[in-house]
Order: sequence, then C-alpha cells, then structure tokens
Amino acid sequence: MTSAGAARIKIGIVGGTGYTGVELLRLLSQHPNAQLTAITSRKEDGMPVADMFPNLRGRVDLCFQTPEKANLEQCDVVFFATPHGVAMSQAESLIKQNVRVIDLAADFRLQDTQVFERWYKMPHSCPTILKQSVYGLVELNREKIAGAQVIGNPGCYPTTVLLGLAPLIQEGRHLIDTSHVIADCKSGVSGAGRKAEVGSLFSEAGDNFKAYGVAGHRHHPEISEQLQLLAGGPVGLVFVPHLVPMIRGMFSTLYARILPEALDTDFQALFEQRYASEPFVDVMPAGSLPETRSVRASNHLRIAVHRPDGGDQLVILVIQDNLVKGASGQAVQNMNLMFGLPESTGLEHVAILP
Amino acid sequence: MTSAGAARIKIGIVGGTGYTGVELLRLLSQHPNAQLTAITSRKEDGMPVADMFPNLRGRVDLCFQTPEKANLEQCDVVFFATPHGVAMSQAESLIKQNVRVIDLAADFRLQDTQVFERWYKMPHSCPTILKQSVYGLVELNREKIAGAQVIGNPGCYPTTVLLGLAPLIQEGRHLIDTSHVIADCKSGVSGAGRKAEVGSLFSEAGDNFKAYGVAGHRHHPEISEQLQLLAGGPVGLVFVPHLVPMIRGMFSTLYARILPEALDTDFQALFEQRYASEPFVDVMPAGSLPETRSVRASNHLRIAVHRPDGGDQLVILVIQDNLVKGASGQAVQNMNLMFGLPESTGLEHVAILP
Amino acid sequence: MTSAGAARIKIGIVGGTGYTGVELLRLLSQHPNAQLTAITSRKEDGMPVADMFPNLRGRVDLCFQTPEKANLEQCDVVFFATPHGVAMSQAESLIKQNVRVIDLAADFRLQDTQVFERWYKMPHSCPTILKQSVYGLVELNREKIAGAQVIGNPGCYPTTVLLGLAPLIQEGRHLIDTSHVIADCKSGVSGAGRKAEVGSLFSEAGDNFKAYGVAGHRHHPEISEQLQLLAGGPVGLVFVPHLVPMIRGMFSTLYARILPEALDTDFQALFEQRYASEPFVDVMPAGSLPETRSVRASNHLRIAVHRPDGGDQLVILVIQDNLVKGASGQAVQNMNLMFGLPESTGLEHVAILP
Amino acid sequence: MTSAGAARIKIGIVGGTGYTGVELLRLLSQHPNAQLTAITSRKEDGMPVADMFPNLRGRVDLCFQTPEKANLEQCDVVFFATPHGVAMSQAESLIKQNVRVIDLAADFRLQDTQVFERWYKMPHSCPTILKQSVYGLVELNREKIAGAQVIGNPGCYPTTVLLGLAPLIQEGRHLIDTSHVIADCKSGVSGAGRKAEVGSLFSEAGDNFKAYGVAGHRHHPEISEQLQLLAGGPVGLVFVPHLVPMIRGMFSTLYARILPEALDTDFQALFEQRYASEPFVDVMPAGSLPETRSVRASNHLRIAVHRPDGGDQLVILVIQDNLVKGASGQAVQNMNLMFGLPESTGLEHVAILP
Repeated sequence: MTSAGAARIKIGIVGGTGYTGVELLRLLSQHPNAQLTAITSRKEDGMPVADMFPNLRGRVDLCFQTPEKANLEQCDVVFFATPHGVAMSQAESLIKQNVRVIDLAADFRLQDTQVFERWYKMPHSCPTILKQSVYGLVELNREKIAGAQVIGNPGCYPTTVLLGLAPLIQEGRHLIDTSHVIADCKSGVSGAGRKAEVGSLFSEAGDNFKAYGVAGHRHHPEISEQLQLLAGGPVGLVFVPHLVPMIRGMFSTLYARILPEALDTDFQALFEQRYASEPFVDVMPAGSLPETRSVRASNHLRIAVHRPDGGDQLVILVIQDNLVKGASGQAVQNMNLMFGLPESTGLEHVAILP
Repeated sequence: MTSAGAARIKIGIVGGTGYTGVELLRLLSQHPNAQLTAITSRKEDGMPVADMFPNLRGRVDLCFQTPEKANLEQCDVVFFATPHGVAMSQAESLIKQNVRVIDLAADFRLQDTQVFERWYKMPHSCPTILKQSVYGLVELNREKIAGAQVIGNPGCYPTTVLLGLAPLIQEGRHLIDTSHVIADCKSGVSGAGRKAEVGSLFSEAGDNFKAYGVAGHRHHPEISEQLQLLAGGPVGLVFVPHLVPMIRGMFSTLYARILPEALDTDFQALFEQRYASEPFVDVMPAGSLPETRSVRASNHLRIAVHRPDGGDQLVILVIQDNLVKGASGQAVQNMNLMFGLPESTGLEHVAILP
Repeated sequence: MTSAGAARIKIGIVGGTGYTGVELLRLLSQHPNAQLTAITSRKEDGMPVADMFPNLRGRVDLCFQTPEKANLEQCDVVFFATPHGVAMSQAESLIKQNVRVIDLAADFRLQDTQVFERWYKMPHSCPTILKQSVYGLVELNREKIAGAQVIGNPGCYPTTVLLGLAPLIQEGRHLIDTSHVIADCKSGVSGAGRKAEVGSLFSEAGDNFKAYGVAGHRHHPEISEQLQLLAGGPVGLVFVPHLVPMIRGMFSTLYARILPEALDTDFQALFEQRYASEPFVDVMPAGSLPETRSVRASNHLRIAVHRPDGGDQLVILVIQDNLVKGASGQAVQNMNLMFGLPESTGLEHVAILP
Repeated sequence: MTSAGAARIKIGIVGGTGYTGVELLRLLSQHPNAQLTAITSRKEDGMPVADMFPNLRGRVDLCFQTPEKANLEQCDVVFFATPHGVAMSQAESLIKQNVRVIDLAADFRLQDTQVFERWYKMPHSCPTILKQSVYGLVELNREKIAGAQVIGNPGCYPTTVLLGLAPLIQEGRHLIDTSHVIADCKSGVSGAGRKAEVGSLFSEAGDNFKAYGVAGHRHHPEISEQLQLLAGGPVGLVFVPHLVPMIRGMFSTLYARILPEALDTDFQALFEQRYASEPFVDVMPAGSLPETRSVRASNHLRIAVHRPDGGDQLVILVIQDNLVKGASGQAVQNMNLMFGLPESTGLEHVAILP
C-alpha cells in the first residue's frame, strides 16, 4: 500500500498505552506514507506493543521504550498521546531538531495561558512555542496547519461544537443569538481514557446515563476561545457533557435561537455550502437523524440541521467517533497536511456498522 | 406481606405481553393489597404468564386469556398496557360496572381531542369519558386522582419534564422565559416497547446514540398541554428525545433562562420546598449529578438543580426509570390513591445498583 | 414491614464499599427483621453510605465509620464484604463476644489450609475457628448452618457448579464419569468487584468476550473440595471461567458423561426431586433454556437438565445473579437460618426483567 | 489503492439488506480489485444503499434494484447474502453465464441432501451443482476453492470449531478421543441477523446471557460432516451455542480428551506448525487468553491452546468476528482465491480496539 518510491514519514509516539495511542497505531500502521519508528512508555519499557493491544499482532512490531532509548529526535513528527503537561515539557528540544509536534492533550489548545493554568492546574512551561502553535481543527485552520511546527490537536467535544456552530457565526454573520447557545453533548466512555478509575468501570458506566462536569469542564474554555475567534466577540455558551454507555461515539445536540432578522435564512443550504468541499464533514440531507455508529472507527463527522416546526430555534446534531475525528484521526489529518500529503491519506476507512 | 384482614383489590390487566405489562406484574405480585385476577392476550390465550416472563415463575400463576374469558367486569380496577386506542374502546362498559380504569397508553392523556387525532391518527371514541378522566401525574393532581374513575397515566418523557419544570411555572410564578424552554431528553431502549422492530435490535441500538422524533414526537403535545395548565398560558418548548444504549432509565436535561427580575431566586430551595413531602420525588443536594441507575427498578424520580457559573441559565437534571415512575410504578401509585391506600404501598423497592 | 414486636437483628458490615456490600445494604434495608447498625470503611470514615450509593438515599442513614468507632461487638452478626484475609483477622474477638460472623470472602471456604495458602498467598491465621466454621451453601448444609457461629459464604462460581452437580454425585450415586467433568462458566463483570482495574473498564470489558483464569482460578480448589465431600472421593474437574459484557448474572454450562450403567436414569426427575422443597432452587421443565435476566436481582438459581439426542452426555445449565444467590443474598439466607427466621425472609424480590 | 491497469472484478450482491450484506459492502467498497456493480432487494427497489447504511455515505453509490433490473449475468461473481434457499434457486442460470457464485447461506454447505432437508425444511433444488460446489473454508480447501464455480461459504460456528480441531484430527492423527468432543460456543447478537425478532431486541438480549439450540442447531450437522471428512470417520460432538450481549464476536471453547498414547504431544507446536503460513489464522503464544475484540471488524481468527495442569484435557480457545472471518470476510477471501488475487487483498484491516 506504499506510494512507490516515496520516503515514509518517520513517526514517534510518546505515551502510546491509552486509547488515543492505540488508535494512532491502528491508523498509522495502515497509512501508506507512515513509518512507525518509536513509541515510548517508561512503565512498559521492552514490552511489545502488540502484547498490550493484540489487535496489532502481526501489524506492529515495535516495543515500548523509555524516552531515553527512543531517540525521538530522529523522527519527522512526534505525536503526544500523553496526559496534559508532557508535550510542553519536551516540545522545545524536538523543535530544535526540526521535529514536528502534534499534541493530542491540551498543552497547545488554549492561547490564553491564564485560562490554561486555571483549568489544568499547572503553569504553561513554553508560552513562546504556544504562540507559534496552531489549533489543529483542519476545517477552520487548514492553511496555518500546513505550515505549522506544533499542533494543538482539538478536544473531542470542541471538534463537534465548533464545526456545528461555525457556519452560523463565521465571517461576521448575525444569524443567531450568540449570548445563549446551548451544547448538550454526549460521549462514549472511551473518552475518559484507559485509566483505572471506578467511574469508568463496566458495572458503573454500563446500563446507566448521567451528566458530568456541569459545574465546569476543561473543554468549555477551549470552545469559548475558538468561538470568540470565529465570531469576533464573546459567545455565551452553556455546555453540559453526558456519559453514554457505549465505547466510541460522540453526539452533540446544539441549540441556538435564530435572530429575528435571520429568520429567512436557508440554514440547510448554509451548512451544505460551508462544508461542500470538506472530505470529512458530511452535511446530511434535511430531516436526517444521524447515529454515532455511522462513523464508528472512521474519521467522518456528520451534521444534521433541524428547525422544529419552522420556528426560531435551530437544533444542530453533530456526530463523530471521539477517538478518530475527535482525536487520533484528526491528528493524522493534521500530519497529512503538514507533510504535503492528500488530506485523506490513510483515513478513508469505512465506518463499522453494525 | 398482606395487611391482615384487608380485602385485596381485584386487578385485571389488558395486554400484558409488553414491558409495562410485565413490570405491572412484578410490582403487583409483590403488592400487599393486590390480587392479580385476570390478564388478557388474544394471541397468547392459555399460555402461563410465567412461561413468557420467567422472572415470574413461582410468583404469578395466571395464564393469559382472551378478553371474553377474562371477565374483567369482576375486577375492581383494570390496567390497560396496550397500544393506543384499546382503552377507550373498552372503558365505557367497564365504567358502567363501576370498574376503575388506568390506561398506560395515550387515550386519556390529551384533553384536546383534535390534538389527539392529529398525533395518534384515530378519532377519539369516548370524549365524554375523556372529560371526566384525570391526568395521573400524582404530584400535580393528587386529589383529583383519589376520586377518579378513569386515569390517563402520563407518558414517560412528560413525567420528567413536567416535574422538572413545575416548580418554575406553577402558581403564576414569573421566574423563567417560558417562550423558550428546551428539553433534551434521553431514554433507554425499553421505552420503545417489546415490539419486534429493526431499530430496537441489540445490534442496531447497542453501542450507538441517536436523536429521533426531532420533527415531532407524540409526547410533545402532551407536555405542552400540561405546561399550559400549570403556567396558565402557552409555554414554548423545544423537545428533542434521544435513544441511549441501556435497557431502563430516562434522563432529561432541561434548559430555562431565568428572567431578569428572578435572578435572586434560590432555585435549590424552591425545588426542595415544592417536593418536600413527596415520597417519590427526591430533590438532590446542590451540585449533585444524578445517574439513572440510582433509580433502576424503583419508583423514585430524582432532580438536581444547576445554574452554571451562577448565570441566568438554569439546567435541571431529572432521572427516573421509564418503566416504573415513567409507566407502571406511577400506575400503581395512582391505584393506591384511588383505593385509599398509603401512596407508597408496594412501591418501596430499593433501586438495583449496580 | 416489620414483624410486630420482634426484636430486630443488629447487623454490622465490614467493608461495605464494594458490590457485595451495597447489595447487602439493599437486601438488609428491606429485611423486616434486620437493623443495620454499623458499617465500616477506614477510607470513607464519616461519609454517608447513601452518598456513595445513591440508590440508598432515604433508605439507609448510616455513615461509614472506622472499625474503632463502629463497635461491632454490639452486633448480633457481622458480615465481612472485604478482601480475603480480613475476616480471619477479626473473627476471634467477635466470636468471643458471641457475635456471629458471615464472611463473603474466602477465609472460611477452604478447610485445607495448605490449599488456602497456595491460592490466596497468605497463611491462615485462625485454623481453629476455620474447623468450626461451616460452608454456607444452604442447600447442602442447612442444618449445620443453623447452628454455626462462623460461615464461609460460598464463591459465586462454586454455588452454580455445586448445585448443578450435587444430584448426580451425592449419596454414593454412580451416575456420571466423575473423572472428567467440565464446567464452562460465564460471569457478568460485577463479579470482578468495584476495584479500579483496567480490565474491568467499560471500554475494555464491553462488546467483548474472553476466558480468563484457564491456568488456575481460586474457585477451582473450592469446588473440588466440596465435590469430594459430596462424592466421597476425588472428582476430576476442568473449570474455565469467562467474562460476559453484562453487569450481573452467571451462567454455568456443565458437561458430564453418563456411566453406562446409569443410561436409564431419568435425570429430569432426579433433579426435580432433589430440589423439590428448596425455595431458591428452581428446576425448570425439561427442554428449558434459562436466561440470566430471569434471576436478575433475585436470590433464585435456576437449573435446566439437557441430554442432547438422548446420548450419554449430560448438559446442565445453571443460572444465578452472582451478587445475590452468588454472594449477598446467600449470605442473608444464611443469616435467616442462623437466627431461626424463615429462610426466605427478605429474599422474595421478583427478578427485574427487562 | 487500485492495482494499476488491472480490470476490476464485477460484483453482484443478492439481498444486501442484512448484516452480512452491509459487511460485504464495507469490505468490497475498499477492495482494490472489486467493482460493485449491482445489489438486489425486491423490497427496497430504488433506495440508495447508503440511505439504509449511512456508514457507506460517499462510498457506495449503488441503489437496491429488483433482480430483474440488476442483470446479474453481467457480473463476474455474485454473492448471496440471503435466507437459505435463494442461492440454489438462482445458481444454475448464473453458472450457465459463467458467473461464479458464493453463497453465504447454507445451500451449498452440506453435501448430504437428506441432512440438508431435515434441518432446513426444504428439498435441495440443485443437487448436481451442489456436488461440484466447494466448502469455502480456505484453510482446509484452498486448492479446490481456487478452481470452484460455486462456493458454500461456511457457517460462523463451524469456522471456529473446524479450525480449532483440524490440527488434532487431520491426516489420520490419533491424538484425542473423537467420540466425545465438546464445543461450548458463544456468539454476539449480530449472528442472528438483521431480522425484527423479539429475542434479538436490545432489551431482551442486553445485560443477559443464555444458551440456545441445545436440542439441535443447524450448524451441528455442518460441523459433523466436515469433521468426519477431516478425521476419516465419525466424530462425536456436543455443541452448545450461547448468546452474548455484544454486537460482533464469536468465542468457541473446545474440550477434547487426549488419548493415552498422545500424552507426550507438544500441542502448541502442532498448532503453530499447522497454521504457520496462514495469513488469517493466528496461533497465539502458549498461555494466551484471546478476546473477541482483538479481531473486531478484521478477518483474523486467533487460537490459544491450553492444557490445564498438564492433564489429559485440551482446552482450545478460538475467536473471530462472526461477520468477517465467520461470514463476509471469508467470502471475500474465497473470491480472492477464485480470481487469482493474493488471498489477503482488501482484507488487511486492523481490528478496532477498543
């Protein structure tokens, strides 16, 4: 499946023992231009990756290594699938060696370091690099990403909320009441990661539904910062995340009130036009009811635009696989852009249904 | 567990082959004042109930019978756990024999027969009885229920939305903007009933999340009619139901904007006072995050009141078991009232967790 | 629901933060002769039990306490819902105060202390008490249990395997080839407890099936010891446990070869007679296919006896709820016997279906 | 991803509205040498395939057609993803036009037409074609498949049982007691297909475990016929299928007693050698515990060989995705062989985990 003759991109992964890590490995091991070169885990040093993730047996021969052995400077790009705070501690030395950095955690998502410090309880250790970094939501920042050295890969919730609202608020549009937008979001349990926590146990999260983070969630300031950039002013957002007893999948139900002067707008057409040339954003036909399984294990995000009873309330439904378009797939999409590859390379898998 | 000496209530169930039927059987077979007398199913005539529902082995000896054999007129009360339209066709003859009727379908939920006909695609066949019937949401209509001959047992979604909003709009209160209330509701799959339909298959509904009925759901006019009664005027509601891959459980996230003049209200206190003496409505402490499993198989409904960042947006979280408080438990609660029993009789089961 | 006038049994629970703990609390809070008196957790000292387990809100007012404060000696009986090794360290002092002890862990299950030490990696600290203790499988040891001071409550797998095989091997019967019996067992994830472990995460155990412990499982020697007691000689058992993506429920498929001289046996009748008077063992009609949900949250265990093609191979299907008959319900059944109550007291809940 | 210059195989699918159909579409739409040409459904004539299966949006442009319009004779190969009995009614006319046929139902699995008629309740309508057809289990029949005109694609259970037992009984080996082999098999719910049946509802099959078909299952005679061919004599098999609350996945636990003269055999080595060159059969290292998710949505089948306590009982664990290696993936593997393509073409997807 390799492009004949093309040199492959040498890839390092820091911290590949979680779900975004194994998903990166799944995608990159099938990517025609990628060469998995090193993967680090201090704790699992020496263990074959395929022993931890047997879906990779016969496909990934790498062993986990300590960072010291991994020699990440030899790579063309390093993905950080780590807890918050790790990427910013290593970015500088990698950049000096001209290695590109894509961080799947939050270190390069928030430009406002005070906000970062308040929500992540740590000072930002490389504000200069942060300023040069690019928020890796391809559909909003395609050109900047192509030239970036460091990417802050978006959070899963922000990806759905931003792509679901962008057509309504971009380019100085005055279509909705931006003081009261509601994002009622639902995520599969894999969003909580592969950490041993009671709340993520099968017997706790299964056959159950709950809201969490109502009093405050780290993705809220991230969404708000980007919405403000898009709208050119503050956007009032209520954001309530919920936990769904499914493994993968994210569903965001967005509510926005149409401004009186915009009641004649054809919102279906507005969304279709906005995303007409996007390979991974699918604006479904009017009246559609997307389901998360239609993007399971694929990089697609689907949007349906509803206006109940033709009233003044818009209901935007957005779905994605939180581990693909919401994390690792988006990271690979960023990589493709950064290395001049067609954006869809290695990301054209059809979703798994049922 | 019988009250010594007390005559038991003779009970008939029409159409007990679905989930509300088996749940009625579970509750009533353990109810100290109930005597299961007859259960009808034309299709399953002669089959022991416990053959279809083996959880009832050794506890329920009844067989399904045709309506003809069942002699429902001998009962004190008949529950209809049937498709819409059945109860209204049989209510008149039962009432003449002084049998009480509790309909778990929609025949006696909507007082506006035109609305009924639009949503249920059939004319209402007994508008006179409808007028005398009572909407069986105990916490709103306790006194009327006690004297009622016919009860329209509320829909599952309406139970959560109405109890979640009542304290805000009852008694002429002007606390929220009633022109734009949002109910983002999520239901377990048992809400779709025990019908053989592709959309309810394990491999379709499992590991998946979706919205449905965005363009219109039968519970919408039911909620609206009751909200209007409560508020003394129309309430603008956007209602979006979603399907959760769990068996039982319902979670409603309600969004309401606080009116400027009401910003000083202590909403937590308001809810606590409103439901202080209710045995089955639990207003949780401020900051609580209820989960549906905390009421699994019990008749309790729990409410948490949130006001993110102390702003002008209220977020009310409401949970119940859709088959108990949302259907069969509520029906038994109605029966208790109608027969002068303590309201909690036979309904005090502790929820099953995990 | 209290027996009028009867003094309630004062109950202590050590270590009630796991699933067998909350299940004990659910059952005992609804038990007419039980008075929950103290519950210990060193880590959660002071926390209301209902804060951890919100299904108990309004039903259990106790707070967790340190063992020092809990004063367990005042109790009539103490349940240990703790890791292995805790009960045996505290049993002696409780027994001296004439407190009965029911251990839901393994400290009093194995009479052979060498076997105990090999499998549980700790020496047995009170072999004298162990000798007086009784293996709490009611259907096998009813009389001894009634007079016991200390009960070793059986493991979940052993309960199903022993009750499924007992009629075939008890009383010197020579019906099956006891050198090669196979127990292919399947358990819901709650059997792994409420410990934060990666393997029990929703995203690991969900939508997945696997065997575990094939090379050796702690319940194997427990089953073997009891089988040997029943059969009066060693029984060769292959035991393979599997993990099912469901919360509660256990299903054991037992395979035994009929001896040539026993081919004329009516095995259905044999099982029916053996368990005819047992309130919690249900031998289903010939040809039945039991499903775990038919006993969800109830103390019943159901057995179906199959003999495919009328050949020489018996297939015994056994189901239970691993947290009830397989743990906490069985413990309460033991308590009832020890205190002279009707065996079914507080255990007659109908299973939850669906 | 196309092989440059190579003509693509023109493919027809009869009856693509079920799970094996959509899985064929997923695999073939990503297959570099396949050209989806026609798909039939009398009921859904005119409906875009991607409307029924939205995971295919943007990837499959075909509409369902009636068989009359579909002109299947133009195809190089036709897959039948239909109920039993359809393929045999259409095979003759297709074969006359030199179209290859791969039947995913049972019409060409059993050579003994009397057995077929007993289990499938219909006469076999083309016994002559049946005789020329090949049982499409690649690892057993690779050469015959390459030259076949008609393939009977194996059942899902038989694939696991046959590949799990073949190394023990092939080539006249006398290693196990072939009179008493046990196959305790577990399948995800998608194995029941996309039919609207109560037993497959989420609320029936979820959070539940049961056996079914203990008195007889159609895959039993299929397995027995193939085992007899492999062993050169009858093999006594007890086969008990179970239903697991997961969507995809199959797990077979096989029990076989080692013959006294074979106790010295290195069974691990035996299996490794037998499957050393198989691209889709993975004999895992000794002691491994395979889980179904490690092959979710991939064509791999994994085997682990256990011998508890080094005794005389073998326990063979076999996993696959029932819709891929157990159905549609295997069908594509057969197609690859029949058309001279590398066997793995289009089948190298990495399994989805988590």
